[in-house]
Amino acid sequence: MQSTLEEVAARVRPLVGQGRVASYIPALGEVPVDRFGMAVATVDGEVYGAGDSGRPFSVQSLSKVFTLALAGDVWDRVGREPSTLAFDSLAQLEQDRGMPRNPFLNAGALVTTDRLLTRTGDAVGALRRFLTEESGAPATVDGAVAASELATGHRNAALAHLVAGYGKLDNPVDDVLDHYVRGCAIALSCADLARAALFLARGGEGRSGRVLPPADVKRLNATMLVCGMYDGVGEFAYRVGLPAKSGVGGGILAVVPNRCVVCVWSPGLDACGNSVAGVAALEAFTVLTGWSVF
Amino acid sequence: MQSTLEEVAARVRPLVGQGRVASYIPALGEVPVDRFGMAVATVDGEVYGAGDSGRPFSVQSLSKVFTLALAGDVWDRVGREPSTLAFDSLAQLEQDRGMPRNPFLNAGALVTTDRLLTRTGDAVGALRRFLTEESGAPATVDGAVAASELATGHRNAALAHLVAGYGKLDNPVDDVLDHYVRGCAIALSCADLARAALFLARGGEGRSGRVLPPADVKRLNATMLVCGMYDGVGEFAYRVGLPAKSGVGGGILAVVPNRCVVCVWSPGLDACGNSVAGVAALEAFTVLTGWSVF
Amino acid sequence: MQSTLEEVAARVRPLVGQGRVASYIPALGEVPVDRFGMAVATVDGEVYGAGDSGRPFSVQSLSKVFTLALAGDVWDRVGREPSTLAFDSLAQLEQDRGMPRNPFLNAGALVTTDRLLTRTGDAVGALRRFLTEESGAPATVDGAVAASELATGHRNAALAHLVAGYGKLDNPVDDVLDHYVRGCAIALSCADLARAALFLARGGEGRSGRVLPPADVKRLNATMLVCGMYDGVGEFAYRVGLPAKSGVGGGILAVVPNRCVVCVWSPGLDACGNSVAGVAALEAFTVLTGWSVF
Amino acid sequence: MQSTLEEVAARVRPLVGQGRVASYIPALGEVPVDRFGMAVATVDGEVYGAGDSGRPFSVQSLSKVFTLALAGDVWDRVGREPSTLAFDSLAQLEQDRGMPRNPFLNAGALVTTDRLLTRTGDAVGALRRFLTEESGAPATVDGAVAASELATGHRNAALAHLVAGYGKLDNPVDDVLDHYVRGCAIALSCADLARAALFLARGGEGRSGRVLPPADVKRLNATMLVCGMYDGVGEFAYRVGLPAKSGVGGGILAVVPNRCVVCVWSPGLDACGNSVAGVAALEAFTVLTGWSVF
Repeated sequence: MQSTLEEVAARVRPLVGQGRVASYIPALGEVPVDRFGMAVATVDGEVYGAGDSGRPFSVQSLSKVFTLALAGDVWDRVGREPSTLAFDSLAQLEQDRGMPRNPFLNAGALVTTDRLLTRTGDAVGALRRFLTEESGAPATVDGAVAASELATGHRNAALAHLVAGYGKLDNPVDDVLDHYVRGCAIALSCADLARAALFLARGGEGRSGRVLPPADVKRLNATMLVCGMYDGVGEFAYRVGLPAKSGVGGGILAVVPNRCVVCVWSPGLDACGNSVAGVAALEAFTVLTGWSVF
Repeated sequence: MQSTLEEVAARVRPLVGQGRVASYIPALGEVPVDRFGMAVATVDGEVYGAGDSGRPFSVQSLSKVFTLALAGDVWDRVGREPSTLAFDSLAQLEQDRGMPRNPFLNAGALVTTDRLLTRTGDAVGALRRFLTEESGAPATVDGAVAASELATGHRNAALAHLVAGYGKLDNPVDDVLDHYVRGCAIALSCADLARAALFLARGGEGRSGRVLPPADVKRLNATMLVCGMYDGVGEFAYRVGLPAKSGVGGGILAVVPNRCVVCVWSPGLDACGNSVAGVAALEAFTVLTGWSVF
Repeated sequence: MQSTLEEVAARVRPLVGQGRVASYIPALGEVPVDRFGMAVATVDGEVYGAGDSGRPFSVQSLSKVFTLALAGDVWDRVGREPSTLAFDSLAQLEQDRGMPRNPFLNAGALVTTDRLLTRTGDAVGALRRFLTEESGAPATVDGAVAASELATGHRNAALAHLVAGYGKLDNPVDDVLDHYVRGCAIALSCADLARAALFLARGGEGRSGRVLPPADVKRLNATMLVCGMYDGVGEFAYRVGLPAKSGVGGGILAVVPNRCVVCVWSPGLDACGNSVAGVAALEAFTVLTGWSVF
Repeated sequence: MQSTLEEVAARVRPLVGQGRVASYIPALGEVPVDRFGMAVATVDGEVYGAGDSGRPFSVQSLSKVFTLALAGDVWDRVGREPSTLAFDSLAQLEQDRGMPRNPFLNAGALVTTDRLLTRTGDAVGALRRFLTEESGAPATVDGAVAASELATGHRNAALAHLVAGYGKLDNPVDDVLDHYVRGCAIALSCADLARAALFLARGGEGRSGRVLPPADVKRLNATMLVCGMYDGVGEFAYRVGLPAKSGVGGGILAVVPNRCVVCVWSPGLDACGNSVAGVAALEAFTVLTGWSVF
């Protein structure tokens, strides 16, 4: 596996640095575009890494996977269909009358954050506790990123108000936004994240016990495959064929059921908001291993 | 003219009470649906009235006409094309990248309010002063309506944040919303409003002096005809043929250039948000007088 | 009036040749872009001209005005609201379930053509007879333009099939398309068209008798003002303030009620599909004469 | 396996007859709504059946899978992203400028049919030959269904003309429509279809030899999972978790890679156009077998 990761890293080297670093959150725009890290955590407990696999980065939308897993039943307030519009589209949300199309869109994650906040009283606290326990590394919020996002996050505020306008938030808009933004601003490394998400490849069994029943893990993986890569889900399924979730920090989490979780990070994004080198690395990984759900 | 108004009132009597009172602002929902008032202010200074022509009602979007007239040049930030979507549509605004399609949509009026706020330091103050001077009646803000609208106004907050997200507001979102909502909550009667809008029929000449140059008044009237009746502009032009602006409080202001301004009020609204009896009254008025711009 | 037209022609000279000649109909693309003609027919029977006012051009969508006037009641099959999408938009038509938003969109004119075909048995024949009688010039179909449009007109075929799919055409799709395309391919001069449309400025009274009742003419003018200039209606109302209809052949017909009809032609089109020099000429005309409906 | 199928059939019995039979193709509307059949073809050559597993039905959109497999490279003309709009949406196609979002929408299948027609000279002939060889049953076109669909298929004609209008068809519109409609009107049983699609579970190896390379089969399965169930893909992935394609005749083909192909048929459709009892049967099948790609 270690040599496979080295081979993958070598193959995607020419792509590292391509694409654009997310700039709508000013603090994210300062990350060097030429970073690349990759880690694999296997179901039997091994962790392999290449490149910057130990360097923390801003998880951003990768947090949406964990929030969904912890929030309990959310399906009365959020759908599970793909969206053909951008992850922060107001039009889609309005057309669906405040019911976000899936929990991996910003609006959907605002709804799952609201639910987690109601359930625990401290959504970002619950998220941090879980990530710390499962990864073994302290999951801290990058205050500069959170502050930067709150100060410039008019679109997320618009989404939250629109959801609230349809009566679909239980907590005050400002509280939900605060927890959502801080959850996105958690910084962890590829190795940490692969470890923390391992329950997705182990039928719901995490390091510190059962996270979800097996049937729910299958469903979460299915929802990731259909909705996890913004408006590039079809292309990603075609090229890679694994359930995955990407974030505008440049991270992608992918699951090979019953085998491993892969986390890759490189900040240069394509037009859909997915890491250019990250997608290529996962494609190379599936070619080399022959692993795919199809 | 007085007998014409009486005749109009008699003809629309069966329609008064039809339609639905706006309920998304709770305080508005308490107005009795069976009110009807109508007033005509002629260019030579006469004012005629029928029904509840002297009873104040919530001007709501009628204020958008006066805000636009007072805001100065706004066309770098707002268009002048009709919208085929609802007056509070997020989708339209997003598609147009934060440039509201016209100043009579909520988003457009947030932009003109922002401009008036920058220009005067107190948008709602400027609006009240103008309305008081031109109508001769004190233009007061109905605090209950304003509070009700602010407390439930998530959609307007979403619109304001979306405009701000595109960098198109100069003042803080909360300030703009506050002035916008209080401007909508001003209460005046049909007679007051007809008097206050008389400059639109007199080439820009108001009671207390010139409000706008003649060319700008023509343009404002043209923009009303094409954009002033929500997504019922074509139907209204077809049936009535006058520049007009309606509000969800049930009021409609209509202009007969060089002759008069008509203001009609009845709270029951049709599916577009226009007063059912109000539209019918203006249609009857044009049939009886033969007045139309076509 | 003659000197006014000369002055207008002089003012817009620098704009003649700007814009792009419609090229989606190959035969139209061959017209020299630097043509300019203008004619005014007054209600008392005078006709004034400037530039190429006597040179025939392809009327294209100007024919939609005459088809609507001759088709009888069409409002069960077509709306009268503006469209914010392109004149050949399928999305708008689909959203409206096969009910075209207005009779000046392609889909709307297919519906009025269908109605005229049912009413007369020969839609293009009825159109040619009317135009010939009212203009005094033989209204002939340019066979090359019609053939060119039929051969490449997949979008119009798509619109017609979509309307038919909603059960809203009475005649076979191919027949309706044939009459529609030949009606658009009629060639007439500015002077001819101004004469033929004079009933719109005379309360429905044409050269050879009553065409429409006065109330219907007002309504037709109102519908033109709100829907006649593609997705540039607001801009045109703001700048010119007259009911008008444009065609991709570069012609624009405008009505000054109770005064005159103006027809202007210059093939270079703006992004909305309206003649660049034509719009400017009408704006200059209203500035010089002070005529406007507002 | 036989007892599993019997158990599935027993469980879904209460749902058989629910939903609505597709009625927009009149001849389809005559099929009794209470039919139910199911067949499994395993990779080692066994075929199991329950209910009406041997009764032919109209394959409709199931043919899109085979047309795609036989058409060669089509990705310059068709995407592979899910659509959130209906399978016959004109709006989606127009927004994408004539590039259908995926090959399982009607527009996408018109494009793959066009490609297959160019490649073979007889698209429906190639399809019938393949299906006959792989299933061992003669794949015949139901002439009544084809005639019924051609006579009423204005929407498909609109889609084809719109694609052609963007220059994306190589053959005449009428020819493409004819082959497309006849391909949809092929009648086969569940057992026949499961056999014919077995190459999808065997890495591309069909009964009569290699159909596609293994990598292309993975991609076809991935594209089915993301795009195969109309606008219910997310729900289907969540509940069933298998690559699948449904048709408005009531059939669904699902693939368990390296294990089997399942074909189920019941004519009652849900709001997305998927068989009500068919989806439930596949869900029960995955629960009983524990098979899923996640």
